[in-house]
Amino acid sequence: MNPVIVLVRPQLGENIGKAARAMLNFGLTEMRLVTPRDGWPNPSAGPAASGADIVLEQAQVFASVAEAVGDCAQVYATTVRKRGVTKPVVTPEEAAREVRAAPGRSAILFGPERSGLATDDVALARKILTVPINPEFGSLNLAQAVILVAYEWSKGQGLASPPTTHLEPPAPQEELEGMMAQLEGMLADTGYYYPLDRVPTIRRTLRTLLTKPSWSSQEVRTVRGVLSALAGRKQHRS
Amino acid sequence: MNPVIVLVRPQLGENIGKAARAMLNFGLTEMRLVTPRDGWPNPSAGPAASGADIVLEQAQVFASVAEAVGDCAQVYATTVRKRGVTKPVVTPEEAAREVRAAPGRSAILFGPERSGLATDDVALARKILTVPINPEFGSLNLAQAVILVAYEWSKGQGLASPPTTHLEPPAPQEELEGMMAQLEGMLADTGYYYPLDRVPTIRRTLRTLLTKPSWSSQEVRTVRGVLSALAGRKQHRS
Repeated sequence: MNPVIVLVRPQLGENIGKAARAMLNFGLTEMRLVTPRDGWPNPSAGPAASGADIVLEQAQVFASVAEAVGDCAQVYATTVRKRGVTKPVVTPEEAAREVRAAPGRSAILFGPERSGLATDDVALARKILTVPINPEFGSLNLAQAVILVAYEWSKGQGLASPPTTHLEPPAPQEELEGMMAQLEGMLADTGYYYPLDRVPTIRRTLRTLLTKPSWSSQEVRTVRGVLSALAGRKQHRS
Repeated sequence: MNPVIVLVRPQLGENIGKAARAMLNFGLTEMRLVTPRDGWPNPSAGPAASGADIVLEQAQVFASVAEAVGDCAQVYATTVRKRGVTKPVVTPEEAAREVRAAPGRSAILFGPERSGLATDDVALARKILTVPINPEFGSLNLAQAVILVAYEWSKGQGLASPPTTHLEPPAPQEELEGMMAQLEGMLADTGYYYPLDRVPTIRRTLRTLLTKPSWSSQEVRTVRGVLSALAGRKQHRS
């Protein structure tokens, strides 16, 4: 079930909009806001959402974190490295896996831009979600943290499959042989195959080289066209 | 080996800075710029990098994509859904795995903000890297695309391990028994165990409930303190 993204005391409307955009990119639509600093709705949110208006329109506002996650069975608190935490810490990947497998709803808490979640907010969560980050430079903003979590979650969803590719199948072997024969015929005239006792080795090398790309029929035709052009003929024999 | 991040004809210095910040979060430091629109260095890049200055300082500028990836064995072109592509398409996850396994350097190309990579840029790449995205709302900006790729790459690196947690081990069973005995003693006075033939069932239910959290010794002591307080006693017997 899709997790709920809870922004706890967000400061700038612009960042709420960016978080909405980040969510919708990966199919998440349910945003909850806990006492946004500048009230709600916020006119700065819409432009920053770049078209993810549906997320903002459906966003619900709550007076406390506890109320915002009242219907959620699993609550994750997103934090950067925290010393002395006494809850399990999971990566976005692990959290996504758990959220997908969980029978009830899950909520993922994100803290205010500057300070992050307060200790009381974290206390309410069952687990801590931390993005593993460069220990010497950890500087994720709110929307970036949201997008990484949403991206991981989306991986298990149908929508997340890569686009279908229409790769041409490799050309049949006989077409490769025709191409090779053409090349070898051209090389025979050049002295390339000298000394003669090395011919088998040279041929094998060329063969390896030319079968490696898995060229399609069209590509083989193109190569042969190139060879023909090099040989000074307009048409090649097939 | 760390991949090289190549920004092809980036427009805004601010976005170059944001991309640098995204990279350094996940340990990537080598940025190459192909004919940035507003020249280089760009005064808008620094502030947007939020401290990732080292990436900007080391950034190299090239006159063409071909020159920028001249020393790279693997080149990936990052695009959104592309119709009719005739190259293999990989996800950030697959690309990251390949980059880590590749013997030579890898380069990942990102196109200009508005238009994305041109057909000629893509032609130069060995594979296409596409972030699987909501088919009804695909709106990733440059820095977001960079951060997702950098994040995936970092997963295989040592730095990406989640922070060590100092979870207290669950309390030994005898401490749980002591706690349970205390609770049962308190409940016995309340009529909670009525009717008497249901006592074993009720006890089992409580036991299940109280062993489930895997409380630590400290937590068990806290619970017992709570019980003691409820029972109106300052100290509990252990």
